[in-house]
Amino acid sequence: MIIILKPATATAMQAKLVSQFGADHEIFTHNNRIAIQGLRPEALPADVQAASESILTAVPAAVQSSRLFHPEDTIIKTPHSVIGGNQFVMMAGPCSVESAEHVDQMAAVAKQGGATIVRGGAFKPRTSPYSFQGLGETGLQYLRTAADKHGLDMITEVMDDEHVAMVAKYTDIFQIGARNMQNFSLLKAVGQTQIPVALKRGMSATIDDVLNAAEYIAAGGNHQIMLLERGIRTFDNKYTRNTFDLGAVPVLQSLTHYPVIVDPSHAVGTWELVTPMAMAGVAAGASGMIVEIHDQPTQALSDGPQALKPATYLKMAQQAFQLHDLMQTWA
Amino acid sequence: MIIILKPATATAMQAKLVSQFGADHEIFTHNNRIAIQGLRPEALPADVQAASESILTAVPAAVQSSRLFHPEDTIIKTPHSVIGGNQFVMMAGPCSVESAEHVDQMAAVAKQGGATIVRGGAFKPRTSPYSFQGLGETGLQYLRTAADKHGLDMITEVMDDEHVAMVAKYTDIFQIGARNMQNFSLLKAVGQTQIPVALKRGMSATIDDVLNAAEYIAAGGNHQIMLLERGIRTFDNKYTRNTFDLGAVPVLQSLTHYPVIVDPSHAVGTWELVTPMAMAGVAAGASGMIVEIHDQPTQALSDGPQALKPATYLKMAQQAFQLHDLMQTWA
Amino acid sequence: MIIILKPATATAMQAKLVSQFGADHEIFTHNNRIAIQGLRPEALPADVQAASESILTAVPAAVQSSRLFHPEDTIIKTPHSVIGGNQFVMMAGPCSVESAEHVDQMAAVAKQGGATIVRGGAFKPRTSPYSFQGLGETGLQYLRTAADKHGLDMITEVMDDEHVAMVAKYTDIFQIGARNMQNFSLLKAVGQTQIPVALKRGMSATIDDVLNAAEYIAAGGNHQIMLLERGIRTFDNKYTRNTFDLGAVPVLQSLTHYPVIVDPSHAVGTWELVTPMAMAGVAAGASGMIVEIHDQPTQALSDGPQALKPATYLKMAQQAFQLHDLMQTWA
Amino acid sequence: MIIILKPATATAMQAKLVSQFGADHEIFTHNNRIAIQGLRPEALPADVQAASESILTAVPAAVQSSRLFHPEDTIIKTPHSVIGGNQFVMMAGPCSVESAEHVDQMAAVAKQGGATIVRGGAFKPRTSPYSFQGLGETGLQYLRTAADKHGLDMITEVMDDEHVAMVAKYTDIFQIGARNMQNFSLLKAVGQTQIPVALKRGMSATIDDVLNAAEYIAAGGNHQIMLLERGIRTFDNKYTRNTFDLGAVPVLQSLTHYPVIVDPSHAVGTWELVTPMAMAGVAAGASGMIVEIHDQPTQALSDGPQALKPATYLKMAQQAFQLHDLMQTWA
Repeated sequence: MIIILKPATATAMQAKLVSQFGADHEIFTHNNRIAIQGLRPEALPADVQAASESILTAVPAAVQSSRLFHPEDTIIKTPHSVIGGNQFVMMAGPCSVESAEHVDQMAAVAKQGGATIVRGGAFKPRTSPYSFQGLGETGLQYLRTAADKHGLDMITEVMDDEHVAMVAKYTDIFQIGARNMQNFSLLKAVGQTQIPVALKRGMSATIDDVLNAAEYIAAGGNHQIMLLERGIRTFDNKYTRNTFDLGAVPVLQSLTHYPVIVDPSHAVGTWELVTPMAMAGVAAGASGMIVEIHDQPTQALSDGPQALKPATYLKMAQQAFQLHDLMQTWA
Repeated sequence: MIIILKPATATAMQAKLVSQFGADHEIFTHNNRIAIQGLRPEALPADVQAASESILTAVPAAVQSSRLFHPEDTIIKTPHSVIGGNQFVMMAGPCSVESAEHVDQMAAVAKQGGATIVRGGAFKPRTSPYSFQGLGETGLQYLRTAADKHGLDMITEVMDDEHVAMVAKYTDIFQIGARNMQNFSLLKAVGQTQIPVALKRGMSATIDDVLNAAEYIAAGGNHQIMLLERGIRTFDNKYTRNTFDLGAVPVLQSLTHYPVIVDPSHAVGTWELVTPMAMAGVAAGASGMIVEIHDQPTQALSDGPQALKPATYLKMAQQAFQLHDLMQTWA
Repeated sequence: MIIILKPATATAMQAKLVSQFGADHEIFTHNNRIAIQGLRPEALPADVQAASESILTAVPAAVQSSRLFHPEDTIIKTPHSVIGGNQFVMMAGPCSVESAEHVDQMAAVAKQGGATIVRGGAFKPRTSPYSFQGLGETGLQYLRTAADKHGLDMITEVMDDEHVAMVAKYTDIFQIGARNMQNFSLLKAVGQTQIPVALKRGMSATIDDVLNAAEYIAAGGNHQIMLLERGIRTFDNKYTRNTFDLGAVPVLQSLTHYPVIVDPSHAVGTWELVTPMAMAGVAAGASGMIVEIHDQPTQALSDGPQALKPATYLKMAQQAFQLHDLMQTWA
Repeated sequence: MIIILKPATATAMQAKLVSQFGADHEIFTHNNRIAIQGLRPEALPADVQAASESILTAVPAAVQSSRLFHPEDTIIKTPHSVIGGNQFVMMAGPCSVESAEHVDQMAAVAKQGGATIVRGGAFKPRTSPYSFQGLGETGLQYLRTAADKHGLDMITEVMDDEHVAMVAKYTDIFQIGARNMQNFSLLKAVGQTQIPVALKRGMSATIDDVLNAAEYIAAGGNHQIMLLERGIRTFDNKYTRNTFDLGAVPVLQSLTHYPVIVDPSHAVGTWELVTPMAMAGVAAGASGMIVEIHDQPTQALSDGPQALKPATYLKMAQQAFQLHDLMQTWA
């Protein structure tokens, strides 16, 4: 249940309801709203009706993530970036951090294309245990150094709740991978921090699954959440690794206040398709993009086939910003 | 097998190969190319090697639809439209033809938004036998009249090989519905005509299935084919009717020479999502769009929830052309 | 709406309701039940309430196919077979009719394994237009001759409404293929006959889609319908052609009165998996099975990899009947 | 690469190859076989050819899990159970451990039906953070006590690598849930123990994904692995929670040596369908079954709708053992 209170008495009524129901129910407040989990409407005190503009009983389980509870866009600010609202943010970098020199070069390219955030994996969730598993903490150090040198923010994946504190020493944004979208222990752990979290949609996660996973983070008190659409698993994967579900962009934007970012690289899995799908993601209304780049894709330690070479990235990024500019004239 | 012949002797060699193998094999020629179905390379005469630029043996079953056989874009010309290449074509109209007056009004709206083709169903493939099944031939007459009055081409669905000749009397473009994408009798029947065909991807059709279905039309001698992406069936259909597979746009464009058109209305099934998905479809590189419009969606005889009202359509269409114009500067 | 009438006055009340509402509504009667499509309950005459045991308003669109309208199992009788209820029927034969001799041999094998129905395709819906398309009417003649010689019924696919009358001259059971499950013209055409119809589930057809497709047949007056589960299209098709959805067997049995038959051959697409899936299909409660057999699978004109050789088929069939016998002791 | 060595000199050759390549390659031995990861065949010493029966180069990434490396069935022995081979093992219990008394009662019912393993969740991976999350370690104590009292083994889910050591103090078998199938940190952690692991297939995991996930456990040295088929996510979930992919049973059995167990409860999600799907699972050849039971399903703290009441379970279990007995006569 979400109660939209009359502003004049909202604070007092929130305090009263917390005092009365807080011991037995999860309660959340946002401006003049209050959400009470698991309470039946008939149990409300008589004066709540008079103090309310409206009482919503058809409320999703992921209540804090809902626009019904939090109508305004969430805007996330990191040292060099603003994520959400009318902004468009570019995140680029190699799939894996491969060396200090390489990630530095890639950060320079990312920046040149207008990125304010550099990506790179130091802990890699690989399908096979015998594949390259990442450089670990050393990789984080390389990425941090490159980000700082080029005046960029850093995003990197955390795979494990035990690693949260360590990764937190380096990164500006946690990335939760698609395979871990319902690793609830990990979601709870990043929810205990105040570091922004980029939550990737699982391969077969419904929209509601995504929102409930985000709610695990929010339930811990961390509301700096962005959602990444990176393609879903369908019957057709001969020519694309996944099916890029761009309908999820406006759907999520209507249901939740968190920024929605698109990941065309993982969605398609082959570089020739990245630019058109990146453009489609911008046109669908995403607040940003995360894209993989590599100067020598055939030598990449992971996911080379989907990496854009620098020149291709620079052209794509320029187009993306032009397209976003055009869209600002439509609002 | 596709043989790319040296231009100087291509015609002679084609004639020779047809004469030698035409009785036992399907043979197709295009400019200096020749495709021979089911022949092993070692069976080729000795002089073919010398007369060839290259011989391709890894060739898809849908050979005439392949860019390996027909590298240039197919451009389809109807009285008022050019479909394919760098053009962008708008097709709009009601889901069903409801009355002479209504389809006339909708054709006027379509035209105002820049459409050169008006759509409308007279034979409706409805999930339930008890739903409205369309006005039949009368509906075709209404749509033809409206198209002519407003200087538009007409596209309408043909559901049945027995109806092909009758529908052919009215329409400029046949539409084959998603449920009939592998109705091979129907595909063969429209393949016998010279009227352009818009083939909708089936709900669970792979890219290869689409190309093979197109090949059934081409095999009959009709090469005026365009392909419509209209969303596929996946695990997630709570908020969208289907999953709009925009990756199919560049994938099809790389594999085949036929124009690719997007249908955001059926892809999402709810009007609020049509505009962002229409923009995404343009940005993905589609050669055109087909979209459903209705002045009173709640009164529509079919698919009202996904119809755009006129004002929304006009704004969307304007944006689509602006976006296409921007993209022309990128080429 | 379905009205369950008190038996004593059911006939009179049915006549009255038909007379009153039959002009504007589709009306169906079954024993003491009457279904009226599209009528609001408040429009019922006052005396209906008193004459009714109950009035059901939450009724599926496919009303004649529903157990709410027709609680008893439909039992289909052909000259040599009883399909539905506690019976178990075996249908076997080659994918395609290849020659008079071959189909005769396969019919003998089918019969030896306990089959009472021989299958074989004369019109083949092939993905590619250049694949073998079947022997046509000649194939029907061969299959009919083989069936008669061995005292079997015949089932064969009809692909096209124009062919219905011709195929009807030969077959005991029409098969509607998966790709034609929503070829509504074809469904209407077989619905005009009184020949039993085996309707295959489409690759991406939901349970409700299957029932609505069956309703198209029933709406024409043909109620001799059986439903075939043959696997659905999912993300995993490396080791099986489709995903055999055996949950559909009890689900369909609870929702509809039509017999449910399983097709393990098409579900898995590879013969090594056919026997375990056939056993699973029997154990799930199917009323019968249709299975492909071939003495020389590598020489088969279609679908060889999924055909059982005679010895494998005979062992599988024996096990199937043993399993069905065991299950009869559980009822 | 897998080398099948001549038995006489297998041990010596294994030692030699380990000595030569062990520093740079992952090497695994099993009887007279040796698998060397990432080595090109031309790098093998000349005498290997002479010492080998065959050298397999087309080898899956999940090499230790492959029958090519380990042809015999893995048989897992716990104090009261034998899992794998021709055995059939029944595992039953409540979804969640709810109280000491309740789990004791359910263990008694499980045992009465022939189960040798009792299941129950103490840490529950719930979609929403506000749903019941399990009793935690207290729940493990209750389940252990109930198992011991009734002479049963215990299986319970471990959700988190930090919990592995603690859960190990209580359980006979770790369960890895579907949402954690690619939580590689967790897989590595249970791979470090010698406690059997029941790995549930993820909702959208391909067969190869399952095998690679199992390989993460095996790579740590724990080869006591069983695989659980529990349904996959497809387009059709109106009447069943998931689609039970029984084709996976024989497919996995052909590719891997680990026992395959079916979980009909989660596959269908509604108790009426559990018995037919359980029978189908046995008939498909599974080595066992895990099923949820509850005496008062409507009061269950989780997943009540899919729980069998005791009487239904007892009848189902009896049928399952009868069916398995019949199947033993077919071998």
